Amino acid sequence: MASVFTKIIEGEIPSYTVAEDDFCYAFLDINPNTKGHTLCVPKKEVDKLFDLDEMEYSRLMSFSRKVAIAIEAVVHCKRVGMAVVGLEVPHAHIHLIPIHSIGDMNFSQKEEMLPEEFAELAAAIQAKL
Amino acid sequence: MASVFTKIIEGEIPSYTVAEDDFCYAFLDINPNTKGHTLCVPKKEVDKLFDLDEMEYSRLMSFSRKVAIAIEAVVHCKRVGMAVVGLEVPHAHIHLIPIHSIGDMNFSQKEEMLPEEFAELAAAIQAKL
Repeated sequence: MASVFTKIIEGEIPSYTVAEDDFCYAFLDINPNTKGHTLCVPKKEVDKLFDLDEMEYSRLMSFSRKVAIAIEAVVHCKRVGMAVVGLEVPHAHIHLIPIHSIGDMNFSQKEEMLPEEFAELAAAIQAKL
Repeated sequence: MASVFTKIIEGEIPSYTVAEDDFCYAFLDINPNTKGHTLCVPKKEVDKLFDLDEMEYSRLMSFSRKVAIAIEAVVHCKRVGMAVVGLEVPHAHIHLIPIHSIGDMNFSQKEEMLPEEFAELAAAIQAKL
């Protein structure tokens, strides 16, 4: 069965797209730790990040760097943190999280956002790419 | 003033070295979330990960992938998580953390380890590289 991220990439589940190339896809986390929390995923469905081969991993990492720099240009924060956990969805993904304090890296902390806020934010980040 | 990580790289502060190349250095976190928690740093002193240029960033990421695969071969875990926060030490560093649950990514959770356990673990990971 397709992972939730594959369904998002294929448009079966709607998302706020931030960036896309032929190998990677980035979209706003719908349940963000902080405003601007973005997920970067390979379009290929692989469970663990380190199961990607070296070339694929490098492509995803390079893509995530560009997205992080765009997020930091748009979202007020001390810096953009990165996390890879992957215990819930078996499709490798990189969290990019604008942070002010270590607590912002804690996934039990969540920020409420309205649909129009998500849409504006995704467009603003996209415009920096 | 040299960062604490530069002092570790230069041997001024002792550490349990896991891996090294001409651009990167990996050593066991002395205050680990879980056994095997390792830090990968560029030898160049740069505050934010995304301040590294694309080539430098790619070298650090590729190095971290190799170290993560070696950790996973040695330490019993569900997978190796990755985190970049960087609010405490202004020298970019990647946390590689063997995890069983999301709580293992929480930096307020710490594992006690004896000096000989650190030394054995560092040697075992090194041997897989």
